[in-house]
Amino acid sequence: MAIDFTLSPELEALRMRIRAFVDDVIKPGERELEGGGDGEPLAGRDRLRALFGMRKQAKEAGIWLPHMPEEWGGMGLGHVELAMVQAEAAKSYYGPWVFNCQAPDEGNMHTLLHWGTDAQKEKYLKPLCEGNTRGSCFAMTEPEVAGSDPTLIQTRAYQDGDEWVINGHKWFISGARRAEFAILVCRTEDNPDIPQAANSAFIIDLPSEGWNDVREVETMHGGTGHSEILIEDLRVHNDQMLGGRGQGHLLGQYRLGPARLAHCMRWIAQAETALDMMVDRSLNRFSHGSLLAEKQGIQWMIADSSMELYQAKLMVLHAASKIDAAHKQGDDTPADERVDFKGEVSMAKHFVANMLGRVIDRAIQVHGALGYSTDTPLAHMYQHARWARFADGADEVHQMRIAQRTIAAYTDHKSTRRATGDLPI
Amino acid sequence: MAIDFTLSPELEALRMRIRAFVDDVIKPGERELEGGGDGEPLAGRDRLRALFGMRKQAKEAGIWLPHMPEEWGGMGLGHVELAMVQAEAAKSYYGPWVFNCQAPDEGNMHTLLHWGTDAQKEKYLKPLCEGNTRGSCFAMTEPEVAGSDPTLIQTRAYQDGDEWVINGHKWFISGARRAEFAILVCRTEDNPDIPQAANSAFIIDLPSEGWNDVREVETMHGGTGHSEILIEDLRVHNDQMLGGRGQGHLLGQYRLGPARLAHCMRWIAQAETALDMMVDRSLNRFSHGSLLAEKQGIQWMIADSSMELYQAKLMVLHAASKIDAAHKQGDDTPADERVDFKGEVSMAKHFVANMLGRVIDRAIQVHGALGYSTDTPLAHMYQHARWARFADGADEVHQMRIAQRTIAAYTDHKSTRRATGDLPI
Amino acid sequence: MAIDFTLSPELEALRMRIRAFVDDVIKPGERELEGGGDGEPLAGRDRLRALFGMRKQAKEAGIWLPHMPEEWGGMGLGHVELAMVQAEAAKSYYGPWVFNCQAPDEGNMHTLLHWGTDAQKEKYLKPLCEGNTRGSCFAMTEPEVAGSDPTLIQTRAYQDGDEWVINGHKWFISGARRAEFAILVCRTEDNPDIPQAANSAFIIDLPSEGWNDVREVETMHGGTGHSEILIEDLRVHNDQMLGGRGQGHLLGQYRLGPARLAHCMRWIAQAETALDMMVDRSLNRFSHGSLLAEKQGIQWMIADSSMELYQAKLMVLHAASKIDAAHKQGDDTPADERVDFKGEVSMAKHFVANMLGRVIDRAIQVHGALGYSTDTPLAHMYQHARWARFADGADEVHQMRIAQRTIAAYTDHKSTRRATGDLPI
Amino acid sequence: MAIDFTLSPELEALRMRIRAFVDDVIKPGERELEGGGDGEPLAGRDRLRALFGMRKQAKEAGIWLPHMPEEWGGMGLGHVELAMVQAEAAKSYYGPWVFNCQAPDEGNMHTLLHWGTDAQKEKYLKPLCEGNTRGSCFAMTEPEVAGSDPTLIQTRAYQDGDEWVINGHKWFISGARRAEFAILVCRTEDNPDIPQAANSAFIIDLPSEGWNDVREVETMHGGTGHSEILIEDLRVHNDQMLGGRGQGHLLGQYRLGPARLAHCMRWIAQAETALDMMVDRSLNRFSHGSLLAEKQGIQWMIADSSMELYQAKLMVLHAASKIDAAHKQGDDTPADERVDFKGEVSMAKHFVANMLGRVIDRAIQVHGALGYSTDTPLAHMYQHARWARFADGADEVHQMRIAQRTIAAYTDHKSTRRATGDLPI
Repeated sequence: MAIDFTLSPELEALRMRIRAFVDDVIKPGERELEGGGDGEPLAGRDRLRALFGMRKQAKEAGIWLPHMPEEWGGMGLGHVELAMVQAEAAKSYYGPWVFNCQAPDEGNMHTLLHWGTDAQKEKYLKPLCEGNTRGSCFAMTEPEVAGSDPTLIQTRAYQDGDEWVINGHKWFISGARRAEFAILVCRTEDNPDIPQAANSAFIIDLPSEGWNDVREVETMHGGTGHSEILIEDLRVHNDQMLGGRGQGHLLGQYRLGPARLAHCMRWIAQAETALDMMVDRSLNRFSHGSLLAEKQGIQWMIADSSMELYQAKLMVLHAASKIDAAHKQGDDTPADERVDFKGEVSMAKHFVANMLGRVIDRAIQVHGALGYSTDTPLAHMYQHARWARFADGADEVHQMRIAQRTIAAYTDHKSTRRATGDLPI
Repeated sequence: MAIDFTLSPELEALRMRIRAFVDDVIKPGERELEGGGDGEPLAGRDRLRALFGMRKQAKEAGIWLPHMPEEWGGMGLGHVELAMVQAEAAKSYYGPWVFNCQAPDEGNMHTLLHWGTDAQKEKYLKPLCEGNTRGSCFAMTEPEVAGSDPTLIQTRAYQDGDEWVINGHKWFISGARRAEFAILVCRTEDNPDIPQAANSAFIIDLPSEGWNDVREVETMHGGTGHSEILIEDLRVHNDQMLGGRGQGHLLGQYRLGPARLAHCMRWIAQAETALDMMVDRSLNRFSHGSLLAEKQGIQWMIADSSMELYQAKLMVLHAASKIDAAHKQGDDTPADERVDFKGEVSMAKHFVANMLGRVIDRAIQVHGALGYSTDTPLAHMYQHARWARFADGADEVHQMRIAQRTIAAYTDHKSTRRATGDLPI
Repeated sequence: MAIDFTLSPELEALRMRIRAFVDDVIKPGERELEGGGDGEPLAGRDRLRALFGMRKQAKEAGIWLPHMPEEWGGMGLGHVELAMVQAEAAKSYYGPWVFNCQAPDEGNMHTLLHWGTDAQKEKYLKPLCEGNTRGSCFAMTEPEVAGSDPTLIQTRAYQDGDEWVINGHKWFISGARRAEFAILVCRTEDNPDIPQAANSAFIIDLPSEGWNDVREVETMHGGTGHSEILIEDLRVHNDQMLGGRGQGHLLGQYRLGPARLAHCMRWIAQAETALDMMVDRSLNRFSHGSLLAEKQGIQWMIADSSMELYQAKLMVLHAASKIDAAHKQGDDTPADERVDFKGEVSMAKHFVANMLGRVIDRAIQVHGALGYSTDTPLAHMYQHARWARFADGADEVHQMRIAQRTIAAYTDHKSTRRATGDLPI
Repeated sequence: MAIDFTLSPELEALRMRIRAFVDDVIKPGERELEGGGDGEPLAGRDRLRALFGMRKQAKEAGIWLPHMPEEWGGMGLGHVELAMVQAEAAKSYYGPWVFNCQAPDEGNMHTLLHWGTDAQKEKYLKPLCEGNTRGSCFAMTEPEVAGSDPTLIQTRAYQDGDEWVINGHKWFISGARRAEFAILVCRTEDNPDIPQAANSAFIIDLPSEGWNDVREVETMHGGTGHSEILIEDLRVHNDQMLGGRGQGHLLGQYRLGPARLAHCMRWIAQAETALDMMVDRSLNRFSHGSLLAEKQGIQWMIADSSMELYQAKLMVLHAASKIDAAHKQGDDTPADERVDFKGEVSMAKHFVANMLGRVIDRAIQVHGALGYSTDTPLAHMYQHARWARFADGADEVHQMRIAQRTIAAYTDHKSTRRATGDLPI
């Protein structure tokens, strides 16, 4: 038998080391940053000093760039191992940033590593890995068309000598305001062989003429960094193309698989925090003759949350293991033997995003009015969690993809088995 | 890293061998037994000859008693490996019976192996393993009290010299009519130390004077073998006690963990059959301008089913791996290091039973009136599946237990982590 | 103000009279028919004598044909009043039949009254109203195509002199085996102006040459009268056409509106029975330290059921009042002032059918194994209730229609108001 | 027959008049207040002038105090009529305030009218009705105990001569900061005959010594007026008691019935706005080959929303008609003939609050990232809607009450009928 759900002792030790760092360094840092119980939140230079101070400690502790190979200063972990790191890190809001494995930089590093030229890596990937820059962003979503359907992208680039001239409109570009460069996806091909091959990606230095920051889009959780960008006659040299012509969709897909799963890992940490709080509250609140924890209905809310969080963890571990297996395969693996993890990632993304919302919602309900106030973190978590059902593919797109893969499995093999994890059961 | 979701090549080969046996021997046998398209179902001796003929072939093929140690003629498989076997076997209604790993015999064998005296094993376990008997039954549920709460059991045994005299009332005793013996749980203790220590188990030879078969209880899926038994002055010798005095609850718990999971393994096979049928139908039925498979809502029904079946498989594999881990521990393992699989089994049982109902329900809906007819197996599957939400613990009991374990995890460790699979994430 | 949810005292008195008749005559009759606790069910002539004896009493009591005008021997009630009658009648399985307002005869009477020629009314409607015949059936559904999309009907009639020759295949024709005539819908037009105008209806005397009764389709609730019919060169005279050429769809729509709502009225009675049983059980079953009725989760099951049954009643009353209002309008009412009840009927049909399933399911769960047995009526109710989600339009068709009406309301009036009941709020 | 779901022509005319006022006066006023597309929101005196200007116009138009008797300057409408007014008014955020029928003033007026002495009415009710004051608040909820269980209230008053001295802690006191008086509920009785008779209500002039405004509690939708109040040795004269000693619970119940329903009326307006937006978006957004409105799954989201909004409207109209019927009954009506509307109000409150959340959630999902931004009102509606599941009784309390009423109906009458609306079906 080979099936095993445990970590090696070395990894288990690493996990404990990360947990300790989060508890001992980052959580106190978080309290300081946010002003603790009664102080004022840190701002300006004080804030930056505190933030980069934590990064420095993380780097010294060797908990740094878990997702990158060692030659880039990283820990060289696979995706299963990353799941463990991210789930620990995200117990603090600042955890992933401190370890330099936060969105969108993490996905951009993956992308540059795989698709970038040596020169692009030297110029963009290296400083990002070093962690002293203000970061990067990824510009794909447009207000006018459905983000879930990349064949609709309207931002256009046309070639003019050695340069490309780009015009278009993007929004929900996370981190754009502080980013030092953007990876921008736009349409370059008029008559692609397949509709998915119309787009290409470019690296844009920021600020750039023609890259106009319209505003930070205000959202349900405040105006925290999703920018709207108007692109007018933005010129980039041909060398700034990332990947080949028409490969923008492939690059996006390559990027999104692991990026979606990394979201899930962090959401699991959030959901666990919410479940812990739900149980704690149920043990301390009395109403109509008994503690909440003793009431059957509240127990159902706890039980459903435990079960769904358990499922989420299993799904993320499994999808991560499939990504690892896929990455181990040589490029010469025949098509029908290739490990495909897209179905598993879609199922994980769809389920974990919705699970997160449900668990936080129940935790709020068990807290009553307190849960609606911002006296606990639950209210902000709730507002953030609503985004999870859009981020990196709306629910409806993942459901469509899951169904299509199930139908394809049946069509090809007269069995849906391959679409339910291709597991030995 | 250790995490691994794959089987060894040897086990994968075994799995393929079982699948071939089910396809090549049992499915044709099933068609013959049920009269194929137009013939009459086999009955009487012909039926028995066909059934035991398949068993003989299975034994010769070495696919026999997967759950029993080799010294008892079995394959000595762990629970993860069993999951694979049961999920393949249950692709045919007769599969588990042919391989002699069907309920309730499977659970009774586990129980006798662990709790029986040598004499009891020789007399009851051996013939059961050989597979030539009519089988066994397990008598615990009573009509007057909630089966989920064993402290309420009213069937009483009092001691009279070397014998016990038993009076009571049982029902939903599966397989009682054909069984050669029953394991009977009844109250023997008046003032137990804890309420759970009031019951003991006895092995009853069938037929016996005082064991009165009132009727087969007719249910939603017909009158297929759940008996109602009136026990009046039934006398058994002290030697027939299975386990010690007051250990009836412990024995029931010991039996139910793996038995519940074995149900789940078989239900997964059923759900997969239903999902295959749902997809097949959606590819062949046209309505309002398109194939069902092309409609977004039908795709959601498929996607939800794939996702839930995927989750079910992960849960069963993980719970099985925890049972295996627990069985590997020595009896001297300190209490707080002992692997506990009860939470995982409860979550799997609760989820898989409900998933089964939902997937079959969706498959029926996609089939329309055809799904409501008995022209496909779905209608009978639906009627059987409703039972899953009661069998071996009603939903509500498992939800209570899951919540209690979550609360206990939090109380003991200030984290619910241990109650969501105790996984490395 | 005009809004009023109460009945006039006269109608309230009628309602009490019907309730008393059901309690005093039909329920005892039902027990006798089914053999009471221990006797054998009545059969053959005894059964017929008992059944028609109840009908005679109902006729004498003036509770007869509630849905038909007085000149046809009926009570001349509107649909709101009918709701009250059906909901009382259906407290017994035989109630609607005893009052001669059961499906499919009820719908067929409506259809003949509205669409039949005088001669057709004299020959078919009159005896049906008198209630001494074996009844009628309605033949539309076909196994090969989606019943929800009548443009797909494949049964074809071609004209041959004064006759039509019909070939085709029908199934789920309720009551066909005992019916004295059928209303048959088939395709007569090759190139209709609109796809919905391809079908016509015929009245077929039964038995007829060419109307071949293949079998009673066995379903989840047994083989109780849904026939499969093979139609081979069946000849009918032109006079047997019901309504005009190409009006088969209109006729079906006309028939189905009230027929769907009549189903809902009867389902409400069933759901109320299930809720009564659920509460009764919860007051008598003890488990884990308290009565079920005292547990929060069980209370939620009761509360959800009460609320959904309440909603169902409001919806049926309102939809019925809209049918009544529509029938009061003259044929010269301008199109945009016409009362349209189709949306309300679709919402009621869809919701009540699903509510029925949920309430029965909860009642079974609260009964535990007893609910799964046929010792209570719940098991059979559950098997019947699954049919409700297909009968007279599958869920998916009604959802599509509700959405289309909502979209149309918005498109026409920039407000969805008209699609949510067009109520004064 | 009496059942009728329509309004009299006079009321229908009034309804159109209100709709026109909202469209022509309040909505433009709202845009001006919030700065329109690009201006700054009004503040300070400008804001007050604009707000009270609208009130003046409403008063002149005779749309003023719809819930109050004519002798108090109101329109003397019943609750069914009020439903219509509130549902129109709440199409603008400011509507209910402009018509002086907003929470908590509306409920406080009801309370003062019914429970106040002449002097209390003169001093507090009259100016509130005139609408020139800063308003009032109602202080019951406490942070330390479950608001759903008023027997737990810890704020205590003890008598000292002609005065009462009050100490305690309240929060989520809506409108406290601008209120000119509070109705405060606190414990006055040590050993009440029944636990519900321990509390009394007082009218507190604001500001008062001992009424300490700790902060505005920040919530999921910002810091908009739910205050935390620390009460320290607050002294009120005996004349300020509202109602009798120990009648605080009765008074709260009296207030909450209509107040809960008034919330529902306003929530219906919100849900309708969300549904309109959902449909509009689905008609304008294209993805994966078709408009959203053409996709089956999106249609289901629309259909479910239409159906639930329809149900909500029926429930609110019916519950309102029962309150009206109850108020028409003389005080000498025998107990078992009294109309009880509490069950209907609980069902409406519970359902409408949850329906609101679901409809807004679906509208957001159909809008994609735009729905998450604050570019549409949906995001803020979502944040507000979460409060609905706590306001005036958390879901869990209403579910308990609904179940208890269902159980009582069955216990008293062997039928649950009275608990499902006591309707003629």
